[in-house]
Amino acid sequence: MKKLKYGMVGGGPGSFIGDAHRKAINIDAMAELVAGCFSRTIEKCRETGDALGIDPDRCYATFDEMAKAEAAREDGIDFAVVVTPNVSHYPACKAFLEAGINVSCDKPLCLTVEQAEELEKLAKEKDLLFLVTYTYMGHVTAKHIREFIKAGKLGKIRTVMAEYPQGWLNKEGEWGGKQGEWRCDPKQSGGVNCLGDLGTHIENAVSHMTGLKIKKVLAKMDIVVPGRVLDDNDVVLVEYEGGATGCYWASQFAIGHDNDLKVRIYGEKGSILWRQEECETVTMIDADGTIVERHRGNGGIEAEAAKYGRLPSGHTEGWLESMGNLYKCFINCINARKAGTFTPDMIDYPSVEAGVEGIKFVAACLKSNEAGNVWVEV
Amino acid sequence: MKKLKYGMVGGGPGSFIGDAHRKAINIDAMAELVAGCFSRTIEKCRETGDALGIDPDRCYATFDEMAKAEAAREDGIDFAVVVTPNVSHYPACKAFLEAGINVSCDKPLCLTVEQAEELEKLAKEKDLLFLVTYTYMGHVTAKHIREFIKAGKLGKIRTVMAEYPQGWLNKEGEWGGKQGEWRCDPKQSGGVNCLGDLGTHIENAVSHMTGLKIKKVLAKMDIVVPGRVLDDNDVVLVEYEGGATGCYWASQFAIGHDNDLKVRIYGEKGSILWRQEECETVTMIDADGTIVERHRGNGGIEAEAAKYGRLPSGHTEGWLESMGNLYKCFINCINARKAGTFTPDMIDYPSVEAGVEGIKFVAACLKSNEAGNVWVEV
Amino acid sequence: MKKLKYGMVGGGPGSFIGDAHRKAINIDAMAELVAGCFSRTIEKCRETGDALGIDPDRCYATFDEMAKAEAAREDGIDFAVVVTPNVSHYPACKAFLEAGINVSCDKPLCLTVEQAEELEKLAKEKDLLFLVTYTYMGHVTAKHIREFIKAGKLGKIRTVMAEYPQGWLNKEGEWGGKQGEWRCDPKQSGGVNCLGDLGTHIENAVSHMTGLKIKKVLAKMDIVVPGRVLDDNDVVLVEYEGGATGCYWASQFAIGHDNDLKVRIYGEKGSILWRQEECETVTMIDADGTIVERHRGNGGIEAEAAKYGRLPSGHTEGWLESMGNLYKCFINCINARKAGTFTPDMIDYPSVEAGVEGIKFVAACLKSNEAGNVWVEV
Amino acid sequence: MKKLKYGMVGGGPGSFIGDAHRKAINIDAMAELVAGCFSRTIEKCRETGDALGIDPDRCYATFDEMAKAEAAREDGIDFAVVVTPNVSHYPACKAFLEAGINVSCDKPLCLTVEQAEELEKLAKEKDLLFLVTYTYMGHVTAKHIREFIKAGKLGKIRTVMAEYPQGWLNKEGEWGGKQGEWRCDPKQSGGVNCLGDLGTHIENAVSHMTGLKIKKVLAKMDIVVPGRVLDDNDVVLVEYEGGATGCYWASQFAIGHDNDLKVRIYGEKGSILWRQEECETVTMIDADGTIVERHRGNGGIEAEAAKYGRLPSGHTEGWLESMGNLYKCFINCINARKAGTFTPDMIDYPSVEAGVEGIKFVAACLKSNEAGNVWVEV
Repeated sequence: MKKLKYGMVGGGPGSFIGDAHRKAINIDAMAELVAGCFSRTIEKCRETGDALGIDPDRCYATFDEMAKAEAAREDGIDFAVVVTPNVSHYPACKAFLEAGINVSCDKPLCLTVEQAEELEKLAKEKDLLFLVTYTYMGHVTAKHIREFIKAGKLGKIRTVMAEYPQGWLNKEGEWGGKQGEWRCDPKQSGGVNCLGDLGTHIENAVSHMTGLKIKKVLAKMDIVVPGRVLDDNDVVLVEYEGGATGCYWASQFAIGHDNDLKVRIYGEKGSILWRQEECETVTMIDADGTIVERHRGNGGIEAEAAKYGRLPSGHTEGWLESMGNLYKCFINCINARKAGTFTPDMIDYPSVEAGVEGIKFVAACLKSNEAGNVWVEV
Repeated sequence: MKKLKYGMVGGGPGSFIGDAHRKAINIDAMAELVAGCFSRTIEKCRETGDALGIDPDRCYATFDEMAKAEAAREDGIDFAVVVTPNVSHYPACKAFLEAGINVSCDKPLCLTVEQAEELEKLAKEKDLLFLVTYTYMGHVTAKHIREFIKAGKLGKIRTVMAEYPQGWLNKEGEWGGKQGEWRCDPKQSGGVNCLGDLGTHIENAVSHMTGLKIKKVLAKMDIVVPGRVLDDNDVVLVEYEGGATGCYWASQFAIGHDNDLKVRIYGEKGSILWRQEECETVTMIDADGTIVERHRGNGGIEAEAAKYGRLPSGHTEGWLESMGNLYKCFINCINARKAGTFTPDMIDYPSVEAGVEGIKFVAACLKSNEAGNVWVEV
Repeated sequence: MKKLKYGMVGGGPGSFIGDAHRKAINIDAMAELVAGCFSRTIEKCRETGDALGIDPDRCYATFDEMAKAEAAREDGIDFAVVVTPNVSHYPACKAFLEAGINVSCDKPLCLTVEQAEELEKLAKEKDLLFLVTYTYMGHVTAKHIREFIKAGKLGKIRTVMAEYPQGWLNKEGEWGGKQGEWRCDPKQSGGVNCLGDLGTHIENAVSHMTGLKIKKVLAKMDIVVPGRVLDDNDVVLVEYEGGATGCYWASQFAIGHDNDLKVRIYGEKGSILWRQEECETVTMIDADGTIVERHRGNGGIEAEAAKYGRLPSGHTEGWLESMGNLYKCFINCINARKAGTFTPDMIDYPSVEAGVEGIKFVAACLKSNEAGNVWVEV
Repeated sequence: MKKLKYGMVGGGPGSFIGDAHRKAINIDAMAELVAGCFSRTIEKCRETGDALGIDPDRCYATFDEMAKAEAAREDGIDFAVVVTPNVSHYPACKAFLEAGINVSCDKPLCLTVEQAEELEKLAKEKDLLFLVTYTYMGHVTAKHIREFIKAGKLGKIRTVMAEYPQGWLNKEGEWGGKQGEWRCDPKQSGGVNCLGDLGTHIENAVSHMTGLKIKKVLAKMDIVVPGRVLDDNDVVLVEYEGGATGCYWASQFAIGHDNDLKVRIYGEKGSILWRQEECETVTMIDADGTIVERHRGNGGIEAEAAKYGRLPSGHTEGWLESMGNLYKCFINCINARKAGTFTPDMIDYPSVEAGVEGIKFVAACLKSNEAGNVWVEV
């Protein structure tokens, strides 16, 4: 099988997420990096390109230039990976879509509902594939939960408790290095910090696992650590269509939590507990209190999920494999497009619609918070 | 040391909590049961009395009769234990206080703020001791956390996440036997179910551990399992005096949770995690992410808390010991009163004031919920 | 129901186990302490007796005197509890048996196989009940495992891994207070320390849960912490009748373990994991890797075991309740004897035969170790 | 940086470990696969080669042919990866060493001590680098423990309890597919099964973490599941130089264990617990019982270990990253050789010496077991 070619926007020195995307794509070796606009100056961009073995001619000063040049090449990139701070997601994605290039963009998709809907419309018009990298839903156990619930094994869902606490931004006067600095800076992050960075993962995880649609939210978004200017602790009450309820919590100063996305789903027939830091395990409880724990790689994992595993049970898979699964499916879809064998049901990754939902969720929460924590329709 | 004498109201056949109070008091053998009004008929009352070795003359048809008769005896009871369904707490407590007898009452203290404040006033006027049995705060680790925070080791508290899910009342048409029936019945339980049964434990646990005072609440109280008429799932947003925030969750249909009171406290210097089902352990995390786990019975437990331990570490103590600790202190105080050595700082148990706070919390939540989930001052 | 009367040998100031036995018996209030030989001098004995509300006339200078005097009384004790250092177990038990009084003795039963067999013979001749307090097998989950295996649900057992590490005696020159001092002293403890104190619990737990009989052992008994003169770390390879194998580990210097008795049983149809420090839970795994966790108090616990529970699930029971279960059954048997309703199948506690097995196990291990870690038949 | 070139022996269809090595190498993209002898027929070899994008001319029928051809090429491979069943390790490694090509070989290194020592000698004579892929020691936390102990923070080590149970081969008449079949077949596996597959990992893990050298062993190697002809359950007592002791357990039928390598190290100043299935965490306990848990990516991890991390804490790394770390260092060393900057202290991966130790350990255990479980010097 011939490898696809991809380019990257962002991911220069000090970037965490750019390097992580590259490594995740590497695992299955189905695509290779051949172009990039890694930094804001062409010099720094070429340095990174050189370290990554990229032809200097395919190191670009701007994403616009890159989009045009790559679209013009016979051997141009098959997809672009956008891993800049949030503020650049929209223009970069737009540039590649307009140039007819498939896009993978880190979450949150962009800054406003208008931007999000424009990207969605553009992707449809251009008939392009668009991955939004909600990493955690790539894991086998996350997909297992989705299939399990879809099959009706939990019965009607009653309530969902989900949270994503982190602790790394707990200190006054400390900004968590480059990663924290841009997240806490309205100029790079947009109007939200914690809710955009972590809250959208919660929203996507619950939506992906349960299929529930949010009807309205009541959000309390607090700025707590002295010196911050954007939210760093958020609680959101949720009502879903159909009557179920939810409560989401995200925090950046919750000491003791590294990266602790956790979803608990309570149905009429049973419950499911899932924690991304222990993502090799999924816990399911029957109505009589029997607790059943299943591990990726063993029996009892739904087939549609199990197929994403690479290693035998107990040979731990983690973050890179989760991200890798998103890319694997995305790349398979691009290949199928090329081969003329593509059908829409092959899309088993969060697409631009999931990105739009995330931005709508953030917008409704902001509105609720500004109005004094009242209910706002999404 | 001579044992104190006590009587019990409630605790007849099928009662869980009455028998549990008796066993908890038994452990240290500092008081003996000598009188009771265990059931609503004198025949059933005498049956229970007989099984417990109580003199039939001290088995009473009503708590009023019991209060008067015991007050009149030379060898009358030193304290009364009230373990009836909620609706009788107020009149029973009142009867004993008026008769000059110390009272231990299960939580929630009563049904209304007026009742609660009257009991508080009466206890003061009569100069009597009044224990409200918030069991879980009797455990060594709960007291350790209180001392740890009081000593400033967490710094300023930023947010508190606390929850008390249970799953036993998850089935439509099933009421969890006698225990569930009265809890779900407004005639016996008052105007709340889950929030009174579980929510008040959360409120007390956070208050006891942190010393924080609730300023206002925003409550969402849902009736979820078909057929219920009182709340069975509650989420409460909290603002404390001084600016910290909290989020409390209580549920009775959360399959997979037996009795899962959990408190997580996030301060500027560190965090504390505590779960009553694993109450022998307390987890404390420093701002640099170092996780320290301490076990009851080992070094590092604050002395004011450690003194309540009975067994070496790893010889597990549980619910009965926690309850026993409340009674141990209560009985020590009564003995000190008799000996003339009592000082108010000896009171290391939840007193009537804690009971009043619980009822005020419930009342404010009800008001918030009825008004459409708005902020209400407590 | 009238309470039984009991007396205690040992359990003076500084004793851990004597006070623990008293508290465990108190829980169910089915017996009361009325006599004792708590210490080696009558003065100290009377001090303890006074604190416990014992008639000074029933505080005795020696256990021989106590046995004779109590046997002679109309209202003499129904059973004696022997909780001295090991070296006195044999003569004390013998004195009460000869006086016709039922006995409860802490483990290990005595020092030699000859002593053990003599006590067994004497108990039979005198037709007396004899409890050996292997505390941990009193817990509901331990009994559940026994019933589960007895019902064939694990299939043929293949291997057993069991251990009992503690860490409290890890420091050179420190002896763990009175409790450690006598255990490390051959004059009070006999020829073994760790293997007698902890190893016999392992032997009993595996025997009780699985029903397996030990055929032969290969033991390595090491004296590790500088200054010790008796074993403080033991590994024993075991072969059972029928071909299954086992490996036992006990240690007193294993820092990080409080009281960590753990049994893992691997059968052809599944496995069982049990840890006494988390004794409210039992973990069972099917051959396909499905992990099922059950909690005391919930469905799925075998009825013969579940009946010993006192509190609802999640209201944690621990060490005292386990010990209390042994006494509850022992007292029920004595009451049934008195009532003429006793049948031998009512004995659901470790009896003198279990004590003899423990001493034979220790003797075979000592022989194996002295011979250079060779196989020795038990 | 230019990528190195490598070839693979083994790793055809159905191979787990070959694909896993390829993915692990891919992560950091420092080497690319360009040649292979993936299967026993050239046709099947070319099929795999085609799927992996290998030039058909570099798909070889035998490893001998491959070694000679690649050695003769200007652009020949920089290293060969040997991932066949055990029986072919020795001849394949020998072929590449003789051809002057660096080797990475899966464990166990080979079948006999003679073979192992010959490979060691050959590697030295040819001055080639030789990686033996004891995967688990590549993880950050494993390296942390090594550094922590090397720095004396545990004090003198007293005893080590280590185990590696798996459960996948628990059924009579089932052989676990291709993976289990060759492991259980003496013709492909050599004279041991479980001890070679799992026991050598234990031996290496303890040796790597503690630096302890095994002096003698007493092994019990059992054939348990009906139909097996090689050991499937092994217990090994160990004495190290300097007086510390150990006990190792490996099993293939221990239902409930996926891949459960666990090491517990007890020193005079503290203990360390490590479990590969939760390898992001390391637990360290001080002599006073304070339990400290550290996570990869946070403070408190020794710098020499922390540098191997790729993702922030809580972004889970697992098996592929561990294996990747071994290759990263191995490739760095090869590059340094080429650049003339190599120094021997750069070798931070298990080399051929570690492989030899493993084979000596197995040989001594076999001898001990055959002689009736007696002590044998290693």
